[in-house]
Amino acid sequence: LSNPRPIVTLTTDFGEGSRYVAAMKGALLDGNPDAYLVDLSHSIPPQDIVAGARFLTETISWFPPGTLHVAVVDPGVGSSRKILYVEWRDQRLLLPDNGLMTCLAEREKPTRMLVLENPDWWHREVAPTFHGRDIFAPVAAHLSRGRDPVGLGPAVNTMETLPLSKASRVGQKIEGEVVEIDSFGNLVTDIGQELLDGVPRDESVRVACDEHETFGIFSSYSEQPSMTLIALVGSGGKLELAIVDDSAAIMLGVRRGAKVTLEW
Amino acid sequence: LSNPRPIVTLTTDFGEGSRYVAAMKGALLDGNPDAYLVDLSHSIPPQDIVAGARFLTETISWFPPGTLHVAVVDPGVGSSRKILYVEWRDQRLLLPDNGLMTCLAEREKPTRMLVLENPDWWHREVAPTFHGRDIFAPVAAHLSRGRDPVGLGPAVNTMETLPLSKASRVGQKIEGEVVEIDSFGNLVTDIGQELLDGVPRDESVRVACDEHETFGIFSSYSEQPSMTLIALVGSGGKLELAIVDDSAAIMLGVRRGAKVTLEW
Amino acid sequence: LSNPRPIVTLTTDFGEGSRYVAAMKGALLDGNPDAYLVDLSHSIPPQDIVAGARFLTETISWFPPGTLHVAVVDPGVGSSRKILYVEWRDQRLLLPDNGLMTCLAEREKPTRMLVLENPDWWHREVAPTFHGRDIFAPVAAHLSRGRDPVGLGPAVNTMETLPLSKASRVGQKIEGEVVEIDSFGNLVTDIGQELLDGVPRDESVRVACDEHETFGIFSSYSEQPSMTLIALVGSGGKLELAIVDDSAAIMLGVRRGAKVTLEW
Repeated sequence: LSNPRPIVTLTTDFGEGSRYVAAMKGALLDGNPDAYLVDLSHSIPPQDIVAGARFLTETISWFPPGTLHVAVVDPGVGSSRKILYVEWRDQRLLLPDNGLMTCLAEREKPTRMLVLENPDWWHREVAPTFHGRDIFAPVAAHLSRGRDPVGLGPAVNTMETLPLSKASRVGQKIEGEVVEIDSFGNLVTDIGQELLDGVPRDESVRVACDEHETFGIFSSYSEQPSMTLIALVGSGGKLELAIVDDSAAIMLGVRRGAKVTLEW
Repeated sequence: LSNPRPIVTLTTDFGEGSRYVAAMKGALLDGNPDAYLVDLSHSIPPQDIVAGARFLTETISWFPPGTLHVAVVDPGVGSSRKILYVEWRDQRLLLPDNGLMTCLAEREKPTRMLVLENPDWWHREVAPTFHGRDIFAPVAAHLSRGRDPVGLGPAVNTMETLPLSKASRVGQKIEGEVVEIDSFGNLVTDIGQELLDGVPRDESVRVACDEHETFGIFSSYSEQPSMTLIALVGSGGKLELAIVDDSAAIMLGVRRGAKVTLEW
Repeated sequence: LSNPRPIVTLTTDFGEGSRYVAAMKGALLDGNPDAYLVDLSHSIPPQDIVAGARFLTETISWFPPGTLHVAVVDPGVGSSRKILYVEWRDQRLLLPDNGLMTCLAEREKPTRMLVLENPDWWHREVAPTFHGRDIFAPVAAHLSRGRDPVGLGPAVNTMETLPLSKASRVGQKIEGEVVEIDSFGNLVTDIGQELLDGVPRDESVRVACDEHETFGIFSSYSEQPSMTLIALVGSGGKLELAIVDDSAAIMLGVRRGAKVTLEW
């Protein structure tokens, strides 16, 4: 995989405007002043590997082939957890081996995985608490300059995965849960399009979350009046619950993990 | 209008660090890996078209000629609302036809408007809830590669506009309101320089907001002691109320929409 | 100092997504459409010069030689405070002369300082409340195009500095304070590596903050179980207190300025 323009994306749980992000950007540009950095998010909830894994699966496949994605949600920094270089479809990633690849790997098996072991690619001193700056950034700089990843370390075939909530369908009932609350307060579930195959979209389907309910599955928010609770299949292919023109999370007081059921 | 370097700015209400922004960046770079993306803001209050319209008018005219500004504050996504390509002064915009152009159009009439109707420019599948990723981003990629906008769709002469608060001057009194609270807690009003023509700047002018008052109109925060309530003409040419070295919004408990009066 | 690729970083207290940042980016790119802008942070607490000074010292030295850093934390905008062009090690800065250089200058004396006095480099009109857009941005554009800084204004040898907290060591006791709470809720102190020279790392050292205490100094968070209070030397070379896998700031209710003592 190669990349005519060296696009490198950054995803972390460091917080927007964090000095840790700034130092990583500096170390990366110091290693490759021609890298083109793209901030994906620094708002992954702190140390929330599952949220990071879901974020990556919704975003990286939109990028041009060969893009390098650096993802640092890394509560185990400084421990014996490994760091991986991964080729997945036509994308490349650097990330800790802590489950952050779980959702991507569920969609499709990586085609290549290497464990970062060769310190020649790293900063000469490595702070045990900041591998983002001292390992991920210099390695990303080298890779974005076109250095062959073969020298990073040995190939591996396995990685850590996390148990994820799994929506299920039995008879005329689907059970899932809210896995993400987006910036509009929409409640995104783990109920994917494949589970919804053949489910009626009209009012004969009842969608419930906690003590709230709505009927029918729509295509866009604009199909119902303002302030209505609505179920629809969102842009990531998952069922979501929304209040038209307002925040379902705030209006309904629903949090991540809340159960969602469909019956018809 | 052309642009030697393909600068594309992004303004949304998706929230900083939102995965929707990340996916849009991916789709845009996938269509044009040489686009130079500039984040303007992803902190427009959710679905607040008026705030977005005001934001654009304060910012885009500072960019080099030919810059393409993608602005997505789009509560009607998926409805029959149109999407516009607009040429305004020497700038270009892509935005929903929902009033987001209101403030810019008040300053100056657009020189060209096209309605996006040609799906050849779009992603092959369009999610009804995410035109930012599936229409705006691919169209921006094409435009930033220099493709002639004529193929986007038909020209139009009208667009949606929103009624905005209008400050007024009668005799020796001006009435307006707080239209924005900036990140310092300064209270920015809709009272522009043109209304302030000939108004005394000394202590004979009384500026009041809710039950608070101050006298005189100053040029910079530093002209009064710390913790003083001060009125001045801000960098956008509007009268604002500020507490020197602190947040007027928090200290005074004032919100957007509060009435502001000047008398002299 | 020169820079093959014109990297310009931005650090402000304007808030992420602020229209002031957007306007600065526009003015900068209007002056040099080839500038490569890097957001460092717009989350410096409003008007908190000390926090800005600490931020710069943790971040800018990671960038490639010749990088230009524009730092605007500027409560005195519009007053007679000066604006400086500074060369420090192999980095260049533009910042108000209000103490924002304090931490960098403590580490190493700048090699060159000029006062911005020549309005030929500025926007033709300068809003007294927004030098970021009307002075810093156009000057940064010129500098990033390779214009010789000699024309900016006269050289100076002194600058404003702020009194900073200073950790001290007397006998077998070190006293310092919490100077930063990072995005994970870790409590970063002003106790640097040089003060910790020869201090035991084992359980014979007691680290206390308010009524909380812990024993030993570790290298990484992963050396202790989840939810443990731990002391370690962070990636910036300062002692910090952390709760493994959680926020020490929230769990302990500690704020910036809290006293931290080590005894052994």
